[in-house]
Amino acid sequence: MGGGDWLRHVPAGDNRERLVCPDCGFVNYQNPKIVVGSVASHEGRILLCRRSINPRRGFWTLPAGYLENHETVEDGARREAAEEALARLTIDALLAVYNIPRISQVQLIHRARIDNPDGIGAGEETEAVGLFDWADIPWDDLAFPSVRWALEHWRAVAEATRFAPFTNPPGETGDY
Amino acid sequence: MGGGDWLRHVPAGDNRERLVCPDCGFVNYQNPKIVVGSVASHEGRILLCRRSINPRRGFWTLPAGYLENHETVEDGARREAAEEALARLTIDALLAVYNIPRISQVQLIHRARIDNPDGIGAGEETEAVGLFDWADIPWDDLAFPSVRWALEHWRAVAEATRFAPFTNPPGETGDY
Repeated sequence: MGGGDWLRHVPAGDNRERLVCPDCGFVNYQNPKIVVGSVASHEGRILLCRRSINPRRGFWTLPAGYLENHETVEDGARREAAEEALARLTIDALLAVYNIPRISQVQLIHRARIDNPDGIGAGEETEAVGLFDWADIPWDDLAFPSVRWALEHWRAVAEATRFAPFTNPPGETGDY
Repeated sequence: MGGGDWLRHVPAGDNRERLVCPDCGFVNYQNPKIVVGSVASHEGRILLCRRSINPRRGFWTLPAGYLENHETVEDGARREAAEEALARLTIDALLAVYNIPRISQVQLIHRARIDNPDGIGAGEETEAVGLFDWADIPWDDLAFPSVRWALEHWRAVAEATRFAPFTNPPGETGDY
């Protein structure tokens, strides 16, 4: 982050240091951010997006991104799929909650159907999209560990209608 | 928020206005915050905390609070129970994901057992704690709508070991 002149200070009623502006007293609370995304499929084929930006430009990822203020997690997951892959989704379950504590990120990944499979295409932050059969997933060119986790967890529940969401595989932190 | 001199500006590569410091260019991204909490029980009795701070001072709530940077959601839920109710928890399931979009909050509420039922007590932000039989829950004195949701959802799954987490009851936004 920037803001070179922030002071580190424990505000009244708090129990840890926060960044405080020495001029106006504004407390810049830094909390984990929520990433919302989806494993979205059509007739068993899964939507992946090839990233046109860093980090991991050129690698394949799920449609996902930061939840915005005043947005629900499902609305956010649908928005990201629309922005990045021009896809309209129907979300049917929460697939997983992943923690990436090093970068203070919590990922809420949904299972979804693609309502406009003929209309998908490269949107923001995306240079190509594809619908992949399981056997054709580019495992060696996935952008992040959590993309692989989500794909494998999606496969594990298959058509199950009610299941508990997954978390990180044992011992995995999501760093790459 | 404070910081009277922030400018509203769409950063390069972004698609909406953010708060930007005119002096150093720092972009103060504002995203939803994650609240982590638990419905924690011992022999069927549920842990509630009476709030010693506003909002809703004097009303009963679940042990819960903001997730901190570099923390997993389960670690955060355990920390909040320790801080507010001196309780050690074993978390066994994700009970619910609630959205409170007006205040840009996502609540991840877990089901947990209390490992030290004789050791609980009023901690930070708490003026009293109690273990309540279902029939004795102070329904008229709960702090927030989502406390009631979580209690009712806890009751709905009872001893079920695997279930999909709940979301907001239909039409409810969490405002009070």
